[in-house]
Amino acid sequence: MINTYMQALGDEPSAIRELFAYGLQRKEQIGADNVFDFSLGNPSIPAPQKVSDLLCEMAQLPPQQVHGYTPAAGLPSVRQAIADSLNRRFGEDYTAGNLYLTCGAAASLSITLKALLEPGDEVIVIAPFFPEYSVWVECHGGTLVPVQARPDDFQIDVDAVAQAITPHTKAIILNSPNNPVGVVYTRPVLEELAAMLRARTEQTARPIFLISDEPYRELVYGSVEPAWIPGIYSNTIVCYSWSKSLSLPGERIGYVLVPGSVDGFERVYAAVNGAGRALGFVCAPVMFQRIIERCADEAVNIAAYEANRKALCAVMDQAGFDYIAPDGAFYLWVRSPESDAQAFSDRAKEHELLVVPSDSFGVGGWIRLGYCVDEQVIARSAEPFKALAAEYGLNPR
Amino acid sequence: MINTYMQALGDEPSAIRELFAYGLQRKEQIGADNVFDFSLGNPSIPAPQKVSDLLCEMAQLPPQQVHGYTPAAGLPSVRQAIADSLNRRFGEDYTAGNLYLTCGAAASLSITLKALLEPGDEVIVIAPFFPEYSVWVECHGGTLVPVQARPDDFQIDVDAVAQAITPHTKAIILNSPNNPVGVVYTRPVLEELAAMLRARTEQTARPIFLISDEPYRELVYGSVEPAWIPGIYSNTIVCYSWSKSLSLPGERIGYVLVPGSVDGFERVYAAVNGAGRALGFVCAPVMFQRIIERCADEAVNIAAYEANRKALCAVMDQAGFDYIAPDGAFYLWVRSPESDAQAFSDRAKEHELLVVPSDSFGVGGWIRLGYCVDEQVIARSAEPFKALAAEYGLNPR
Repeated sequence: MINTYMQALGDEPSAIRELFAYGLQRKEQIGADNVFDFSLGNPSIPAPQKVSDLLCEMAQLPPQQVHGYTPAAGLPSVRQAIADSLNRRFGEDYTAGNLYLTCGAAASLSITLKALLEPGDEVIVIAPFFPEYSVWVECHGGTLVPVQARPDDFQIDVDAVAQAITPHTKAIILNSPNNPVGVVYTRPVLEELAAMLRARTEQTARPIFLISDEPYRELVYGSVEPAWIPGIYSNTIVCYSWSKSLSLPGERIGYVLVPGSVDGFERVYAAVNGAGRALGFVCAPVMFQRIIERCADEAVNIAAYEANRKALCAVMDQAGFDYIAPDGAFYLWVRSPESDAQAFSDRAKEHELLVVPSDSFGVGGWIRLGYCVDEQVIARSAEPFKALAAEYGLNPR
Repeated sequence: MINTYMQALGDEPSAIRELFAYGLQRKEQIGADNVFDFSLGNPSIPAPQKVSDLLCEMAQLPPQQVHGYTPAAGLPSVRQAIADSLNRRFGEDYTAGNLYLTCGAAASLSITLKALLEPGDEVIVIAPFFPEYSVWVECHGGTLVPVQARPDDFQIDVDAVAQAITPHTKAIILNSPNNPVGVVYTRPVLEELAAMLRARTEQTARPIFLISDEPYRELVYGSVEPAWIPGIYSNTIVCYSWSKSLSLPGERIGYVLVPGSVDGFERVYAAVNGAGRALGFVCAPVMFQRIIERCADEAVNIAAYEANRKALCAVMDQAGFDYIAPDGAFYLWVRSPESDAQAFSDRAKEHELLVVPSDSFGVGGWIRLGYCVDEQVIARSAEPFKALAAEYGLNPR
């Protein structure tokens, strides 16, 4: 009677949503201080003061100057400001005509896939991967092809990607810094991937697009610098959002960047515009377009995340859990001491520890801890993590 | 190489966009006061002062309380406030669980169609119709079936709709107050349509949904009161936006209402959630969710539109053009004095009058004038309209 696939998507249980709902309920029962909720990816750093200042400034303007429709791709001056910022940072020569503003990274990915995919096309993702990738690929007529990351460091396994490529491969989605692992793909790995893809497409004359989903681009620690992927592989489309870097996840503002070096640039950029139109995105929210124009170079304050990362790694060390030391984003990827990650997550719950089993991300045997939380949550979680580890006979490292 | 349908949509010429771009260019050439641009549907009334006040108020709050993710359907308190407002106005008993907040009416329509349509389904629209209906229906796998409105008053031709119904008919989109005609469907016509649909679905046991697209619901003149369509036909889904009523078109905030009386309510509401997820809408922009919570009962100031409507009708009368007196929205539907509306629009341009030919809306022989403009534009257009009419030998009415 209705679209049963959409109904199933709406009804689908989600481990993350269920943990979050459970956490709210449990906090009511035993007090918020006694529940340690690492289930979410909601930024815990406030948006910069400049955003609040600009909001108030715009509220004083005549409303007609503030709230009207914009062109579908976004206000030209806003797109040019973003292009200028990217050019300063990455030595490129983008213009407003390379950018299409969106309602956040989810919209960017959905629009890009809708623009590219034709029935039967395959899209490679590196597992573990953000679960909505499969929804958007399948909704837009494609088939998801997961390729496992290297088991030791979760970098891209380029040989495995090469083996997964078929005549139907249209695109590869990369997410670096990575959700859920926190890994940042190194330049040598990306160059190896790019060389392999160039060799393949020279043989077949059928381009393979890289779709670089990078909402965590600025969230990196120490001396790590994420490579600018379009500078390594020319056929790269970038999907970005200010949800994490400016802590504006509910405001829905991001972009699709189609560099001029992309195969068939004009057709691809037209298709991005067409896909935004077809899906019902009229324009990105206008007030946040204008805020981004003035915040394109705003530095990200990641000191709090860096402190949390260090503290949570120490908690894991003291308890004896094995994990991948994260270079970016705000997630810690921890090995489950039993192969059934869901069972481990359930057992953690008995200690009021809310952790997401890796099955949600297309692999078994791990859990994801989001450390975008108050530092006190991490400090207080040390004892319960130790108690949990003790049940599995783990020893401090 | 990419999705050619999306590319075609992105490249497609649009009479409205082209007129708008021409208008901007022409205003630079001969001065803004000498161009009479009736091509757009961008509200000319400012957003209420309360919106600006609330923006500034929220800018003072801790940003974590303002900009975070919300549940996909929207904040429960916001949805309940909207439900309460609808209940007060229409004597219903909706709750937060009937509402799904969206990025505006375009998103509402796209999501609703995605939720309902399966391949081969047909969707009836009443011509003339908003051109994006065909994009969303086709993008989501359906076939558009236009049915002409009654030629004299542009009300729904219920017999013609009955004849267009097939076993594949999934839904009928209604838009009242109507863009482009300005007609408001009368209660008797809607009751006749509802009775016909009930009789049909009793025979076939296959429900037919009404999708009521009503962003202009509050923009009505004199004593006209648009009927509350779910009160007439129980299987009605409402798509709404505050773009026109609060003059916030660039902010992208609206809703889908699935009343409990809709056939298979729980499955349909789940499918709406699934479709929002599949298309890449994570949540509606959060600050405007919170603003709507406090503005759900805000009265619309339509005095300016009412004055413009009266003034523009007088201009048409004085020039001798025939038109449909509008009961709502902010459009005047004027008969082209030659059968080729595009040719008439081109000729109007020679008098610096920018008017949209009806071909954009699926019918020939008319033009649309948007009177969401400064009153001075209307006043100054009187002479050029007279001159244009004289070329066709028309006489003042």
